[in-house]
Amino acid sequence: MASRKFRVHIENARNKGELFQVTRERWDAACVRHRALARRLEASIGWDGDGLEEALKEAEIVIGVPARRERLADRAPRLRWIHATSAGVDAFLPLDWLPPGVAFTNNVGAHGVKAGQFMGMAYHLLNSRMPEIIANQRKRHWEQLFSPNIRGKVALIIGLGDLGQGAARAARQIGLKVIGVSRSGKKVAAADAVHKTAALDRLLPQADYVVMAIPLTPETRHLLSAERLGLMKRSAGVINISRGPVVDNAALARKLRSGELAGAVLDVLDAEPLPPDSPLWDTPNLIITPHISCDDGEHYVDISLDLWFGNLARFLNGRPLANRVDPRRGY
Amino acid sequence: MASRKFRVHIENARNKGELFQVTRERWDAACVRHRALARRLEASIGWDGDGLEEALKEAEIVIGVPARRERLADRAPRLRWIHATSAGVDAFLPLDWLPPGVAFTNNVGAHGVKAGQFMGMAYHLLNSRMPEIIANQRKRHWEQLFSPNIRGKVALIIGLGDLGQGAARAARQIGLKVIGVSRSGKKVAAADAVHKTAALDRLLPQADYVVMAIPLTPETRHLLSAERLGLMKRSAGVINISRGPVVDNAALARKLRSGELAGAVLDVLDAEPLPPDSPLWDTPNLIITPHISCDDGEHYVDISLDLWFGNLARFLNGRPLANRVDPRRGY
Repeated sequence: MASRKFRVHIENARNKGELFQVTRERWDAACVRHRALARRLEASIGWDGDGLEEALKEAEIVIGVPARRERLADRAPRLRWIHATSAGVDAFLPLDWLPPGVAFTNNVGAHGVKAGQFMGMAYHLLNSRMPEIIANQRKRHWEQLFSPNIRGKVALIIGLGDLGQGAARAARQIGLKVIGVSRSGKKVAAADAVHKTAALDRLLPQADYVVMAIPLTPETRHLLSAERLGLMKRSAGVINISRGPVVDNAALARKLRSGELAGAVLDVLDAEPLPPDSPLWDTPNLIITPHISCDDGEHYVDISLDLWFGNLARFLNGRPLANRVDPRRGY
Repeated sequence: MASRKFRVHIENARNKGELFQVTRERWDAACVRHRALARRLEASIGWDGDGLEEALKEAEIVIGVPARRERLADRAPRLRWIHATSAGVDAFLPLDWLPPGVAFTNNVGAHGVKAGQFMGMAYHLLNSRMPEIIANQRKRHWEQLFSPNIRGKVALIIGLGDLGQGAARAARQIGLKVIGVSRSGKKVAAADAVHKTAALDRLLPQADYVVMAIPLTPETRHLLSAERLGLMKRSAGVINISRGPVVDNAALARKLRSGELAGAVLDVLDAEPLPPDSPLWDTPNLIITPHISCDDGEHYVDISLDLWFGNLARFLNGRPLANRVDPRRGY
């Protein structure tokens, strides 16, 4: 006799962009890749809340965090697990809407490969003085700005989750010295040394590249503050691939304009889309990329669903879920 | 009794830029690193021809190709070896000025490490759609242009000398498939396959990135012609780190403007400095860097002199010199 089926509802938001949408086609393809697990599911797919209330009445698992989250325990009485299709869950903090006993997981693990590839470019962009060279191209100005060998430069990577470890592997691969900073201070394979966050002020003056790869929480907002930016070498650069507000970007822009810092690559901003009138757009020695550093442009959902099915196996076997968000920490 | 000293003259050109000048300080430092060999030398250093004629009367070895090269056999009757401090010697072709029996060497080997680092950036610049993203930043326009995983893309590297092998190692390191093309077709470690130049037209349609790393000679001028550019995929890109004229850059610009090619990174141009009125400056999806891809910005001369001293050991021991330019091939 077949075991009972679990009701899953998938909630999509059209404004998130096609790349991130769990379409019927992508869902079906994932079910083919994970046939035995998929057989245990009965799934519905909704868009922007259409059919959501009906689905919530039965759903035990929801993929995608609904826009309306109030009174979720009443609306979804059988809910046991809700899964965010992003790695960062700062948009859903505080987690006071999460019914007690419901597991909340994020999409950590889907971004490290692309993050590493972006970082492999970003270190070189700063070392090769590309911000200046790009500005010179715009001015039709030929000036031979030479640059040193990148080997032996120091990458200070703040946050050693999926993104940070991708950044560390990329740094190691091109011969950088890798210093990591994390809450736990626990060693990771690609870092030469890992310190707890308390060591940050002592480490910043050693860095050629400071990489922000830390989740945004009330504690990490402006972690790279004006004061801390002031501890960096004038020749150093900042790269942010996690969330805009973990850096005091107004202070960063001032230091780039005054030449107190050599360059920056920001893939994430305080407001996204960055408004056309933002002074960041033409800040010297700043390269802005539009929050594309860590998302696979072909297979984001495929990769994400493979991770989710791995977690489903744990769920069905009564094992602890991976990627559970700690409501206290906020990630 | 000490063996006799060899007369070396070093000819510098001030217009070549400080980075490339064999100053007394750099020469002395190299002599300390190669003390036993340096003891066999008596060296003079000149600038822009000052003292050159006097020095040539006695010199057996000249480092740096003099601007005036006519009647060199008469002016330098004892000359046995002349060394170019660049890898490309296209500026000195044809070699009809080279006295018979005088060895002519180039600086191949000084550029591969930096070339590899630049290429590690350049592949990602094209894969990450950075030409479009940079243009959007200029227009204060936020648009999320996502990009695929770079692994498995195909780099077709034309020329497998020092630069080409650096480009191949960089490609291999980031997971590209590497196809090489060289005169000999001889296997190199970092390439999955190597073909002779005759196979080029068959290989071009397979490439995601076509990398020009071939010396400029009469035979290689416009090797990447309009016709050959037309064999490439629309989604592919061109990267040139050797000499501008090995690509038909007018045809390349047309194909970038029409969208028949996705992007290009040109570090070398037909005329350098690129004139302010060149239409290349604002060609869409083209990144121009000012001939800086392959030169170590801190230690170019140190690296070059270390290579030269290695060759000096061969010279003094009567062994064949490395890096001898073949006057017939022109490199």
